Amino acid sequence: MRTSIATVCLSGTLEEKLHACAQAGFDGVEIFEQDLLVSPHSPAEIRALAAELGLSLDLYQPFRDFEGVDEELLADNLYRAEAKFRLMRELGMDLMLLCSNVGTATIDDDETAAAQLRTLGDLAARYGIRIAYEALAWGKFVNDFEHACRLVELADHPNVGTCLDSFHILSRGWDPAGIEKIPAEKIFFVQLADAPQLSMDILSWSRHYRVFPGEGAWELDKFLGHLVRSGYTGPVSLEIFNDVFRQADEVRTAVDAMRSLIWLAERTWVHLQQTDGPDAHYPMELATLPQVPEPTGFNFAEVKAESTKKLQTLLGQLGFACRGRHRTKPVQLWTQGRARIIINGQQARNQEPAIAALGFDVADPVRAASRAMQLKAAPVPRQSQADEEVLQAVSAPDTTEVFLCQGTPDGTAAWTREFGRPADAAAPAGRELISHVDHVNLAQPWQHFDESVLFYESTLALSPSPSTEVPSPVGLVRSQVMRTRDGAVRLALNIAPLVMEKPGPSSESAYPQHIAFACTDVIALARDAVGRGLEFLKIPANYYADLQARFRLAPELLATLQELNLLYDRDQHGEFLHFYTATVGSVFFEVVERRNGYDGYGAPNAPVRLAAQYLLTKQG
Amino acid sequence: MRTSIATVCLSGTLEEKLHACAQAGFDGVEIFEQDLLVSPHSPAEIRALAAELGLSLDLYQPFRDFEGVDEELLADNLYRAEAKFRLMRELGMDLMLLCSNVGTATIDDDETAAAQLRTLGDLAARYGIRIAYEALAWGKFVNDFEHACRLVELADHPNVGTCLDSFHILSRGWDPAGIEKIPAEKIFFVQLADAPQLSMDILSWSRHYRVFPGEGAWELDKFLGHLVRSGYTGPVSLEIFNDVFRQADEVRTAVDAMRSLIWLAERTWVHLQQTDGPDAHYPMELATLPQVPEPTGFNFAEVKAESTKKLQTLLGQLGFACRGRHRTKPVQLWTQGRARIIINGQQARNQEPAIAALGFDVADPVRAASRAMQLKAAPVPRQSQADEEVLQAVSAPDTTEVFLCQGTPDGTAAWTREFGRPADAAAPAGRELISHVDHVNLAQPWQHFDESVLFYESTLALSPSPSTEVPSPVGLVRSQVMRTRDGAVRLALNIAPLVMEKPGPSSESAYPQHIAFACTDVIALARDAVGRGLEFLKIPANYYADLQARFRLAPELLATLQELNLLYDRDQHGEFLHFYTATVGSVFFEVVERRNGYDGYGAPNAPVRLAAQYLLTKQG
Repeated sequence: MRTSIATVCLSGTLEEKLHACAQAGFDGVEIFEQDLLVSPHSPAEIRALAAELGLSLDLYQPFRDFEGVDEELLADNLYRAEAKFRLMRELGMDLMLLCSNVGTATIDDDETAAAQLRTLGDLAARYGIRIAYEALAWGKFVNDFEHACRLVELADHPNVGTCLDSFHILSRGWDPAGIEKIPAEKIFFVQLADAPQLSMDILSWSRHYRVFPGEGAWELDKFLGHLVRSGYTGPVSLEIFNDVFRQADEVRTAVDAMRSLIWLAERTWVHLQQTDGPDAHYPMELATLPQVPEPTGFNFAEVKAESTKKLQTLLGQLGFACRGRHRTKPVQLWTQGRARIIINGQQARNQEPAIAALGFDVADPVRAASRAMQLKAAPVPRQSQADEEVLQAVSAPDTTEVFLCQGTPDGTAAWTREFGRPADAAAPAGRELISHVDHVNLAQPWQHFDESVLFYESTLALSPSPSTEVPSPVGLVRSQVMRTRDGAVRLALNIAPLVMEKPGPSSESAYPQHIAFACTDVIALARDAVGRGLEFLKIPANYYADLQARFRLAPELLATLQELNLLYDRDQHGEFLHFYTATVGSVFFEVVERRNGYDGYGAPNAPVRLAAQYLLTKQG
Repeated sequence: MRTSIATVCLSGTLEEKLHACAQAGFDGVEIFEQDLLVSPHSPAEIRALAAELGLSLDLYQPFRDFEGVDEELLADNLYRAEAKFRLMRELGMDLMLLCSNVGTATIDDDETAAAQLRTLGDLAARYGIRIAYEALAWGKFVNDFEHACRLVELADHPNVGTCLDSFHILSRGWDPAGIEKIPAEKIFFVQLADAPQLSMDILSWSRHYRVFPGEGAWELDKFLGHLVRSGYTGPVSLEIFNDVFRQADEVRTAVDAMRSLIWLAERTWVHLQQTDGPDAHYPMELATLPQVPEPTGFNFAEVKAESTKKLQTLLGQLGFACRGRHRTKPVQLWTQGRARIIINGQQARNQEPAIAALGFDVADPVRAASRAMQLKAAPVPRQSQADEEVLQAVSAPDTTEVFLCQGTPDGTAAWTREFGRPADAAAPAGRELISHVDHVNLAQPWQHFDESVLFYESTLALSPSPSTEVPSPVGLVRSQVMRTRDGAVRLALNIAPLVMEKPGPSSESAYPQHIAFACTDVIALARDAVGRGLEFLKIPANYYADLQARFRLAPELLATLQELNLLYDRDQHGEFLHFYTATVGSVFFEVVERRNGYDGYGAPNAPVRLAAQYLLTKQG
């Protein structure tokens, strides 16, 4: 599959955009006209730069408001077109996108429109150029891809074909199965966009909210499947108008884009295998990736800190014990049950403690790393001694290091043998009530949220749950859980809105990250922790009055919850009891007890937590 | 009119919110339940704080999902309600908002629902509490305010009335005229919200995009007019769910909110005068403001700079001359025609040149300042000598100082006499081709855009034109022109998106502000300026090729435009020729020539300008 991307998807100058596309590995680009108009580089210079970068210039776009007009306007439009054909010749380009007329069309007659397309085809042929005619979803007389194809058929000109755009087809609810009936040689170009399921006017939806395939709500694997069956072999291109991408780093966006296409190709291949059988063959080749099953658990979580003392104290109070020190580095391993926390003292000076890495148990780390790398994940450079286990790691969009670790049936981890038992190793302070890591909550920069979701879904095979919104005192937090079907791995990604104009909290301190531990008796653990002097996040009394009104809890339970700063929730399955520790740097811990298959995360309690943490940032 | 505001409108803790409401001058507040739940303060403490701040606690909200349920759930709901009544007694509150059931209602029967409301009324009466029942736009069986009123009538209980919310009424397209038929004593509370005209699902629209009255698309003056005619005299409250307000400084938001209510009261008064005649009287009193006509022109623009040399050079090259130095301050006056630029060297160290103040010609400066102050505009402290003219000034939301100056028929300004003719005053360098300031373009922080529009509309009587969107290399810019009907004052407010992750430009340098001068012969002026060594913003050759394709200009004109870095546009009236200077600090200048009544701002050329300026920030 040849990959392409429209320059309008990316931030920056045309020169910066082309460099980013090449760096991300695209085969070609669509030149969005405005990017060229505002560029100080001549068409010949752009042509040379693209050649140097190994990018083909696939489509010049858009040309607008051509067909369905009177003779006088037609003459003007042909004049406009010829000027662009000359320009395209300087660029060395041979394919132009023509959008169906949205503004100036006055004649709603297919024969007329087709005849005018034919005239344009004649003119284009003189310049060796072909025209890809596309139905815009809001076209005045033509807004349906099958209608556009009928006009192309009527025009009956070798230089006039169609361009298919998933946005314009799926946003209107047209059935993409019709694509299979279009003669492949008449499909001159294909543009893909995904979009969240919004009910808003199509133009605004299209201009601001498009996202890369896999980041929205549409089944683009099926869409692409229809195209593959049609026999099309040309470029599959991305055309995404998105306000956030316009502001973000163009290389990141281009990599995100490329990942989305690679993943879409794989999903389409799987879809076609399932529907057409393993023996079906198509002219378009779809590269596939090493398949990986879902991870089976968290292997470890690593917290970096310049000063590790507070973290050690907190973990000790939760019943963790230091089980080892790394032989060569200032790194400690703290465990309880199958929960492993690495405290890494190699943090840069003045850096607050922060979650630095997560290890996931996978069936085949080398295969999983290979898949991630093929999905353009950046490998984490790791220095290891000769006798150390080589761990596979890639960097997530929020810079968290993702380690792909060998899962074992008994939940042990081979790398722990690199940690010698410390001379001062204490026995655990009491009962081991924590069994494993229940979930991890990572704050995401809002401009990379979609990228993060796609990253974890495509590389780690985690699935997104429906997202929720949580009010905090400094903004609305969007929370998106990525998880395995069995719940063994649950990762909550929170968009942290920018903290503006508020003295006191920074984005980091207002939205700390956390690791939640699963426990079989949170009340007993909380009592133990109280005895060990744990600083709990203080929950306001008003919360408990409301809890009582909502759930009619037994007075003794309510009193215990309030005494221990425990929070409570209930779903159709069971109950959820949990507490939070104080925050150290940008990290805190949570301990949760799921009773009778409760499957949530205490979402109604999240605002209480955020408000309490906000208060602490104000107090210093 | 008693003013109130829901705490959910504002950022921060409940304590911070109450302080902000008091500071902005509200009479009372609605306590949004979640704000209380997450507060460390007890109900008694909140009650005491409100009393100390002089705020009445008008409404406890929301209570949800009560009516239309089976007997068992009704018992649960009454239990929930009684817990809240006890809480309200601690708060000293006597009015609770009940939203129509959206989740648990199973019985679509008015008699049943009304009987359940009556039962609730009996319970509430025992606590001295009244219930304001409101139809949510997405209520399961009740989503229409008149339906809610029928249930209240059926319930026939002195403690059960209705709450009217403009969002829930206008978002559904219900006719608010029906409000006049509701018995005033049954309207227990009123909530106002405005909203932009979006076509999206009502719930998302309501939860994220509400704005203060005057900042959206609805005719809230007519809405409030119906309410006034009904005889209602209770609080008029604001309930605005807005993602941006959640992030912004709560005091600013509260002031913006108060301004919107004051302005709405005035507009409603004007509306009632016009429709019911000047002798009509109503139980609710609507305070009015000093009326002011539109300003008649720009009196001056002030640019601050630590080093003023570059600005002086630029203005000299444009044909301006220094006509005076202030007698006591390092301030110069540069003029050409009626365009006056004050260059103020009193800037703080290391501050780049920036637009600091704008003077507007108004009919009555004292009256205009009084109006602005009553609209909560912050006065600008100004030190003046005994013999100096006292200038009235207020601070705009983006911190630009707005001076209200005495307009004169001949366009002169009395304050200029304070500027002595400098010893080194040069004659103007050539012909005076610039006549006046055509428009000023100010970048607005995106979180205060709506506030800025309302500020200029309410205080200065400028009207918003339809807004446009302009792509720049680092984000999409939303541009909103505020103008007088005759075009004598045109102020373009641009939302500058955050510049993120891009090395090089800051938000300030990527989105500089500018002053545009009107000129009768921009080609001649450009030639003069070339002769004087002016550094023009360089316009790329590709732009001119496209100009030719679009407009078929005469080859000589095209060559002249390109030679002089002039840009071109055309509308149904006439033509627009303009050029930009280089940027100094965050300021640049534009010179425009409007031919035959062209009424725009060259919007198609703005992306060319932004891209060229972006390139300069990259180069150094």
